[in-house]
Amino acid sequence: MNQNSTYDFTIQSLGECTIDSPLNVSYYTTDTRRVLFNIDLHHYADLKAPDGLPLSIEIAGPRAKIFFDPAKTKAAIVTCGGLCPGINDVIRAVVMELYHRYGVQNIIGIKYGFQGLIPKYRHEVVQLLPEVVKDIHAIGGSILSSSRGRQDIGEMVNALKRMNIDILFCIGGDGTMRAVEYITDEITGRNLNISVIGIPKTIDNDLNLIQKTFGYDTAISEAVKAIECAHVEAKGAPMGVGLVKIMGRQSGHIATGAALALSDVNFVLIPEVPFDLEGDNGFLKVLERRLLLRNHCVILIAEGAGQELMHHEDGPVETDASGNLRLHDIGPFLKARIEDYFKQKAMEINLKYIDPSYTIRSVPANASDSIYCGALGQYAVHAGMAGKTGMLVGLMKDEYVHLPLKIIASGAKVNPEGNVWMRVLESTGQPPSMKN
Amino acid sequence: MNQNSTYDFTIQSLGECTIDSPLNVSYYTTDTRRVLFNIDLHHYADLKAPDGLPLSIEIAGPRAKIFFDPAKTKAAIVTCGGLCPGINDVIRAVVMELYHRYGVQNIIGIKYGFQGLIPKYRHEVVQLLPEVVKDIHAIGGSILSSSRGRQDIGEMVNALKRMNIDILFCIGGDGTMRAVEYITDEITGRNLNISVIGIPKTIDNDLNLIQKTFGYDTAISEAVKAIECAHVEAKGAPMGVGLVKIMGRQSGHIATGAALALSDVNFVLIPEVPFDLEGDNGFLKVLERRLLLRNHCVILIAEGAGQELMHHEDGPVETDASGNLRLHDIGPFLKARIEDYFKQKAMEINLKYIDPSYTIRSVPANASDSIYCGALGQYAVHAGMAGKTGMLVGLMKDEYVHLPLKIIASGAKVNPEGNVWMRVLESTGQPPSMKN
Amino acid sequence: MNQNSTYDFTIQSLGECTIDSPLNVSYYTTDTRRVLFNIDLHHYADLKAPDGLPLSIEIAGPRAKIFFDPAKTKAAIVTCGGLCPGINDVIRAVVMELYHRYGVQNIIGIKYGFQGLIPKYRHEVVQLLPEVVKDIHAIGGSILSSSRGRQDIGEMVNALKRMNIDILFCIGGDGTMRAVEYITDEITGRNLNISVIGIPKTIDNDLNLIQKTFGYDTAISEAVKAIECAHVEAKGAPMGVGLVKIMGRQSGHIATGAALALSDVNFVLIPEVPFDLEGDNGFLKVLERRLLLRNHCVILIAEGAGQELMHHEDGPVETDASGNLRLHDIGPFLKARIEDYFKQKAMEINLKYIDPSYTIRSVPANASDSIYCGALGQYAVHAGMAGKTGMLVGLMKDEYVHLPLKIIASGAKVNPEGNVWMRVLESTGQPPSMKN
Amino acid sequence: MNQNSTYDFTIQSLGECTIDSPLNVSYYTTDTRRVLFNIDLHHYADLKAPDGLPLSIEIAGPRAKIFFDPAKTKAAIVTCGGLCPGINDVIRAVVMELYHRYGVQNIIGIKYGFQGLIPKYRHEVVQLLPEVVKDIHAIGGSILSSSRGRQDIGEMVNALKRMNIDILFCIGGDGTMRAVEYITDEITGRNLNISVIGIPKTIDNDLNLIQKTFGYDTAISEAVKAIECAHVEAKGAPMGVGLVKIMGRQSGHIATGAALALSDVNFVLIPEVPFDLEGDNGFLKVLERRLLLRNHCVILIAEGAGQELMHHEDGPVETDASGNLRLHDIGPFLKARIEDYFKQKAMEINLKYIDPSYTIRSVPANASDSIYCGALGQYAVHAGMAGKTGMLVGLMKDEYVHLPLKIIASGAKVNPEGNVWMRVLESTGQPPSMKN
Repeated sequence: MNQNSTYDFTIQSLGECTIDSPLNVSYYTTDTRRVLFNIDLHHYADLKAPDGLPLSIEIAGPRAKIFFDPAKTKAAIVTCGGLCPGINDVIRAVVMELYHRYGVQNIIGIKYGFQGLIPKYRHEVVQLLPEVVKDIHAIGGSILSSSRGRQDIGEMVNALKRMNIDILFCIGGDGTMRAVEYITDEITGRNLNISVIGIPKTIDNDLNLIQKTFGYDTAISEAVKAIECAHVEAKGAPMGVGLVKIMGRQSGHIATGAALALSDVNFVLIPEVPFDLEGDNGFLKVLERRLLLRNHCVILIAEGAGQELMHHEDGPVETDASGNLRLHDIGPFLKARIEDYFKQKAMEINLKYIDPSYTIRSVPANASDSIYCGALGQYAVHAGMAGKTGMLVGLMKDEYVHLPLKIIASGAKVNPEGNVWMRVLESTGQPPSMKN
Repeated sequence: MNQNSTYDFTIQSLGECTIDSPLNVSYYTTDTRRVLFNIDLHHYADLKAPDGLPLSIEIAGPRAKIFFDPAKTKAAIVTCGGLCPGINDVIRAVVMELYHRYGVQNIIGIKYGFQGLIPKYRHEVVQLLPEVVKDIHAIGGSILSSSRGRQDIGEMVNALKRMNIDILFCIGGDGTMRAVEYITDEITGRNLNISVIGIPKTIDNDLNLIQKTFGYDTAISEAVKAIECAHVEAKGAPMGVGLVKIMGRQSGHIATGAALALSDVNFVLIPEVPFDLEGDNGFLKVLERRLLLRNHCVILIAEGAGQELMHHEDGPVETDASGNLRLHDIGPFLKARIEDYFKQKAMEINLKYIDPSYTIRSVPANASDSIYCGALGQYAVHAGMAGKTGMLVGLMKDEYVHLPLKIIASGAKVNPEGNVWMRVLESTGQPPSMKN
Repeated sequence: MNQNSTYDFTIQSLGECTIDSPLNVSYYTTDTRRVLFNIDLHHYADLKAPDGLPLSIEIAGPRAKIFFDPAKTKAAIVTCGGLCPGINDVIRAVVMELYHRYGVQNIIGIKYGFQGLIPKYRHEVVQLLPEVVKDIHAIGGSILSSSRGRQDIGEMVNALKRMNIDILFCIGGDGTMRAVEYITDEITGRNLNISVIGIPKTIDNDLNLIQKTFGYDTAISEAVKAIECAHVEAKGAPMGVGLVKIMGRQSGHIATGAALALSDVNFVLIPEVPFDLEGDNGFLKVLERRLLLRNHCVILIAEGAGQELMHHEDGPVETDASGNLRLHDIGPFLKARIEDYFKQKAMEINLKYIDPSYTIRSVPANASDSIYCGALGQYAVHAGMAGKTGMLVGLMKDEYVHLPLKIIASGAKVNPEGNVWMRVLESTGQPPSMKN
Repeated sequence: MNQNSTYDFTIQSLGECTIDSPLNVSYYTTDTRRVLFNIDLHHYADLKAPDGLPLSIEIAGPRAKIFFDPAKTKAAIVTCGGLCPGINDVIRAVVMELYHRYGVQNIIGIKYGFQGLIPKYRHEVVQLLPEVVKDIHAIGGSILSSSRGRQDIGEMVNALKRMNIDILFCIGGDGTMRAVEYITDEITGRNLNISVIGIPKTIDNDLNLIQKTFGYDTAISEAVKAIECAHVEAKGAPMGVGLVKIMGRQSGHIATGAALALSDVNFVLIPEVPFDLEGDNGFLKVLERRLLLRNHCVILIAEGAGQELMHHEDGPVETDASGNLRLHDIGPFLKARIEDYFKQKAMEINLKYIDPSYTIRSVPANASDSIYCGALGQYAVHAGMAGKTGMLVGLMKDEYVHLPLKIIASGAKVNPEGNVWMRVLESTGQPPSMKN
């Protein structure tokens, strides 16, 4: 993060909170409880908030006074973008917290992401009651289903108004958070009292500021299983090569995590560390040396790695329905290049290509993610009931906080000069650089 | 099986057994203990052996007298063809039985399949001791590695002779069993006293006569996990389609097993039940109806299914190094055809394609397969020590038996008129025929 | 089995089958299709049926003509005795087969075992529809719950009559099958047209004649996990002893299976192989030698083992509500004896006692058991619809058959002179006898 | 934590670091990099360090200059106390970091905890090389084994000196950290240059200051499985009660975590929330109401809960070899009390008691713990090589830090007034208080 940039961690609010919280607990928090943005002893005051105090962030948690009257409140939940372990846990937690602790009984689920707010798709809404969500944490995916793609902001706000939604909980990625920002702006522009709360979701674990995104932990566990299989395959045949492509569009967090959890990977290729294919330092030559030495090899590649190697071959850049840059598929590309290389060398190899992405992202959350999702859902509800809006809940410095939507972006990188990547280099034994 | 064909279940032998077995047990069996080939009350005598008695099969088990002197015996193990859960369990069982019960201490492992018997590959042999194999059942694949491809029979027998191998245990599939047959013939022709015992391996579970091949049970367990993910993916997006390609070159045993173990599959496509893509009864139209009705769909396809749909597009038939017909890849083909079909209909679908084959076949055996492999290895050793040759051990009518190599062939089918397939139809709800 | 005893495998029937089966399949079977009881080439005719033919057993499967008119048929399912993996799979299969293939739409579930047929307990019945049972195979236990204990036979038949039940499917153990026999007799005595079909359940896998009971396979998988933990514990402390008590009231099938699936067990103690505690050959002395040699030890004991060691200490024999002999708890007894022994020797040991029974029996069925349960349920329905009664479905010689209730008994033993036990001795290294 | 107490986070050091680190990285840290102890915007300066600056904590990480010369350094690792998932991961990480990154090749493992430093036990030491530890993360427990109990501090330091150990890495709990403190003091008193670094281990996750102890995450995952079984058992019988005792001597972290990860628990009983058994608000009465309403119940009890209920029955307080208070076993006690209560009421219940402790703590670490352990091991090595001593590595505010041994204590509680416990109450539906 650039130390010179200006941050504004002010959280938008629909207005004054005048209603007594029904929670009746002893541990209410207040908007004045804030944690320092920078916790370094010698730098905590380097960045200042407009009030001149060190830059700080609002703590999440229940407020003694809330904005919405629970008996009259209607809430909605929508899930957008790709699947990720834990979505159902978040849905469950939001419903349970609203219903049992705040007494909000009118909760609906919007089906198929933002499509569900656009009349032409004719998706029906779902009534969400404790009975409905009780056991959904045992199921992968989203019981509300999801969709990609932009929808008309005005139409969506019309729908919220038409359905008398007071609080909208949006579970989605970086792109979804952008849309949620525009929805909030439109609501503010129309002077409506609708709170919009984001719960950030990206299996890639690459959001800036946020300590860990939900589902990442589960993804690592599942990735490890696929890598173990690649290792067995690599050792099972003469000159066996196990090539595993893993999620990670802009970052190698899953790849590095999985490599550190398991010792069987020999090469980790991530977007943060470009590499050459050809040349004496290039990946293919290094791979050849490894194979001649050890007769087998396991390669783990993040989907966003090596994109620059494929650039020259194609026309204009494409994006998917969510506006994500459509990546070239590095998996089959690398497979073909490796096979070609060794064919030219008349060296017989046995390459097995494994792409476990869908079997990773669609499993139920593990216990750790399940607990984490439970907390995120709970804090999202506290924020919504207090009339906060245009914000998301996240974990920073091991504290649950409120963050303005506009500050969040994907793309947080694995530091190629940092301790984590050094441990990967040590674990794999791969050269620090495969550039010529 | 053709009722008119002649069967000969006679097991070849290297000669008379004159050495007392060191087992010293009370449950020795004899070559005269045989089970009926046909156990049907009204048909058991329909087929006759040359001696006029009803056709029957030799029972496996320890013999009181054996052919080889344990103290002077040298055994070798080789694993050929594709990986399959349980190979290491068989290796372990053979070594433990030879070493601890018969006292054979000279056991070697041939690396990389039949390549390991051909000098030019320069693969080293491995000494196999109890200490080496003790924990290998916890690892997938084969500690000896494997390879495909034919090798020169004469050279292989030269190697066996040069290394003074007395018993060769071959773990491999249908193709391997053919090679093992030729090796046995060559040994017989040269009048050598080398016993060759097969332990049949095919994850597809499609060997004739044999009740169940090892690894199949584990494969089903793993396949089920991939299908659960496909189901989650299918339900997670508008018009979601989960397409899973599973092993099964000539038969749909894994596909039917997995579909019966789990209720989430809507279409099972297997080689035994051809289908059309186009036309009103064709698969694509049926799929469309299903999607319009239920908005999501899970399709499970065996790799050998629908091969005829792709025939016209290509040149001469290819085979792989093991001599297996090289199949066209039905997975991507079907994916493309489905996507094209709905694109033409301007109906947006979300297809997720999952090919879990390598992550299925490379896991360690589950407990059930582990026990089964233990028994197979043990019976293989009993047979080898008794000087049997040109045979394999298998399970029939829940009895372990000796079968001549030449009688075994892959390609046993799922009966499209049988009870099992009917249960699949019932479970999936798919039409009995998708032919026009 | 005693070769001199008389067997009668005749299956009772409610009367002639006159209604066309709605299945409309090509693979109907008939009552004349029978498999030989003894399939040994030289002994298949040693035992004769009353008609002078070799003793044989009726094959299960759909009949072209059935007894009950599906549109008017009402079926009930009841689950009795202890939990076992797969009960819900059987329930599911029975409902699906009745409903989808035979068109029987009136199916009820009796709650809490036979209690559910006795008015005073006031348990309500459950309507069982495909929608209700669709996903229950993912849950352990029984959705109908179960109970132990004898109930009045007359009252139960009254209930069946009052509710107009035509077919009663009973899932239960040995004791339940006895009760089912008496229910059938009472029905016959009253001349009622009610079919009673058993699906035998015992996690111990100790029924005579039957190849494998459902749930056993899953039980082994789970037992293996507990033993792995015991092994880790044993190695984790000085003179560590891991003691695992496993199911097996009269037999050591689970213990032997688990020991064969895993190589970490050093002693397997089963009811079939009595042992002494004291004395130079006794278990405690052997254990001491093992500990001094290797510093750790894993002991697996079946709950029915060593009962005779505890006899002298107690009064009259007790039975539980199901009439099962109430066993003394060998686990804590052995734990105390081991600890006392080494305390007297002033030898510090670290014993960790693990009793995983409830966490083994209450998991969902694994894929293999799930498929098996599916078949059992299906064959039970074919039998019931054909008006068979007083029988159960089972697997013998890898064929599904009909067996008269009265022929089935629990208590099938592990043969202490057989191959399986020899493999256990080899795997553990324990002495063949620990009797003085 | 008491806001008035004085903290001193100064880390002891063996002397000036004068040797260039062989790491040659760009991300060295320095001793002046410190994070604030209190990160609250309005309170960060409430507590002051001796230098008048806000209280802060030293950051972990590699230093550019180190104290020990790698080529001449000898390190030792010892594991003490009870097993916990992840110990082997820490051992592996320490060895790999020392060997591959610092070039320390002389690393030994002390067997059986502190016993291994006392000659009379005659435990041999183990040479720890990368080859030895490469795959140990796949195994539960500790490859070095462990022991409980105090040993003579002087004798242990004698042993360290005799073996020329430069750095001792101690993996252990609260009690071990006390011993490590005394060892450090003895070393300091003798003016020896031996660094002693702790890596804190407690599956209970109850250390003050530290965000999360390793193994806790895995423990929750495993506990959840046992609870699922208890739920199945409870629903499987009339008036079924599943009672699960879980780890948690002084705190209910595992119990609350497991209850939050799974929704099937109806009562969570933890040391932090005392309860009565008898009386109208007492647990037994509340349980009775629950059973009458819902017919089944799942109870999760931490081992340290309800100790006061058992006090009156016994003599003097006992401690185990590690000096831990020997707890009364609440599991069987509560089981007996529940059964007595309902027997008196003539209400038949079916209670199943599950104690999964050993099968929880002895599994291998899950992926998340595995990565965490890897980092802890790495940071411990950085600290040791820099000549730090009398400290441990831990995670606080999501930063790895150095903490003085004397500041760490077990017993951190679940706050009975806090958000986490509120979520447990909401999830279980149990009354906030079961005191009269």
